Amino acid sequence: MVQVGVIGSGNCDGELFSIAERVGEILAERGCIVINGGLGGVMEASAKGARRKGGTVIGILPTADKKYANPYVSVTIATNMGHARNMIIVHSSDALIAIGGEYGTISEMAIALKEGKRVVAIQPPVVLPGLIVAETPEEAVEKALEGFE
Amino acid sequence: MVQVGVIGSGNCDGELFSIAERVGEILAERGCIVINGGLGGVMEASAKGARRKGGTVIGILPTADKKYANPYVSVTIATNMGHARNMIIVHSSDALIAIGGEYGTISEMAIALKEGKRVVAIQPPVVLPGLIVAETPEEAVEKALEGFE
Amino acid sequence: MVQVGVIGSGNCDGELFSIAERVGEILAERGCIVINGGLGGVMEASAKGARRKGGTVIGILPTADKKYANPYVSVTIATNMGHARNMIIVHSSDALIAIGGEYGTISEMAIALKEGKRVVAIQPPVVLPGLIVAETPEEAVEKALEGFE
Amino acid sequence: MVQVGVIGSGNCDGELFSIAERVGEILAERGCIVINGGLGGVMEASAKGARRKGGTVIGILPTADKKYANPYVSVTIATNMGHARNMIIVHSSDALIAIGGEYGTISEMAIALKEGKRVVAIQPPVVLPGLIVAETPEEAVEKALEGFE
Repeated sequence: MVQVGVIGSGNCDGELFSIAERVGEILAERGCIVINGGLGGVMEASAKGARRKGGTVIGILPTADKKYANPYVSVTIATNMGHARNMIIVHSSDALIAIGGEYGTISEMAIALKEGKRVVAIQPPVVLPGLIVAETPEEAVEKALEGFE
Repeated sequence: MVQVGVIGSGNCDGELFSIAERVGEILAERGCIVINGGLGGVMEASAKGARRKGGTVIGILPTADKKYANPYVSVTIATNMGHARNMIIVHSSDALIAIGGEYGTISEMAIALKEGKRVVAIQPPVVLPGLIVAETPEEAVEKALEGFE
Repeated sequence: MVQVGVIGSGNCDGELFSIAERVGEILAERGCIVINGGLGGVMEASAKGARRKGGTVIGILPTADKKYANPYVSVTIATNMGHARNMIIVHSSDALIAIGGEYGTISEMAIALKEGKRVVAIQPPVVLPGLIVAETPEEAVEKALEGFE
Repeated sequence: MVQVGVIGSGNCDGELFSIAERVGEILAERGCIVINGGLGGVMEASAKGARRKGGTVIGILPTADKKYANPYVSVTIATNMGHARNMIIVHSSDALIAIGGEYGTISEMAIALKEGKRVVAIQPPVVLPGLIVAETPEEAVEKALEGFE
């Protein structure tokens, strides 16, 4: 099964939260596994959306303790590796969708692009060479899955 | 859901393979998620057994590339962190079952015991203080899940 | 002693190489320890410059094997953690100087800024909020060390 | 230069502390760089001994913050990777000397032996296949450096 990383703000307002929720829903409907960082904001929203549609969500936490995962993840991976867990999200994802985000998201996008992964971003904090920008959840998933199905 | 790490030899003979397969089966029947290292031997056997019974298996690879996972894992986590992925298996597991094993398994058992996790071992390569030894797959799972259900 | 991370292109032309060499020289003259990624380009140049002036250089490699370090590092740290070693460079540095660079450098700058570290860049691949831009090696070191001496 | 990892108890009594201090002294006299975990007990003792003889000590911390290093390290590497930093100590060491120790030390010895490194232990918590046992600091260093000078 295709594993899609969903990355972005750990704290986000209503609009980004709704976008991330919808991305999670569509990914689940398309049969993808959602990989994310297991915490709040975009991570929680994409997990919530995916689970509502019967999807599987893997939350890869920066902490040693599983208890910090949001309530929507199906499986919690506790790394105890701080920001280095961003690299694990990248390597574990066949493609990535970024929604909003700040420094942490930038670091993940940069490494994903370095690794030659397809990275689609909605409202990206910065536009890096190779980044694919999308306007809607539907467009983002469509572009992320190009060539995988 | 309870996440149980299954660790042990990356290469193993028929007896250990059968034991690991049976451990995977029972864990799936008990509704647990199996966490393992995603490669061969005990990792492959426990994944095979769990999937046969409808379980979910998370393979946490030492490599950057998902392609090294055995064919039975449900979700592949590619860490690109070599032996350090053993620590992620420990942190992600509520309890661990070791089957045979060598140096890598010893490192995982030691860190798991240090972290205060319950570790049950069948034919352990070394007996560490705090390690619980079991004779059969049934006994190992029973002891690993004590207090979790 | 103050530990300054020097990050940037793993392959670079003569101008960036000269800039990095000069940054290494000045850091050594100012009594700083140079932390870098231990490979080629800016990493090799800054190590070469620092050692010429009697400085100490710590090369933090992505590989498991120490043999990949450039010949100028004083001490080799072999992480076997790929890009995750970028995070170790960030955490180990009191301040960072970026020289040129691509995706890997962007990931390091982003995490360093997230961690509240001072990041000074010469010819940065992208300008992130909070990044301090400098024109010369002298200016870069001056700005990086502000408040540390 | 030869890099020797010194591992062992984070808390230790007078005898082990003295042994570790003496190991640090001899390593420095023999021109080796000491690599350790940067905290207390054997890590602090070996750093203290090495520095007294003019040696260089690299403390590889489990934390994100450099401030947790003992006062004797020359350079602090802050990994923010918890127990996974044990693997970095192993990969960065040409040979290792273990002094006392508990679970963490067992995990390091096991991975070092798996990686084919020479591991010499004084009062080891467990004897693993391939481990070389020594009685005194002098004997431990002698055996650790066999073949490197």
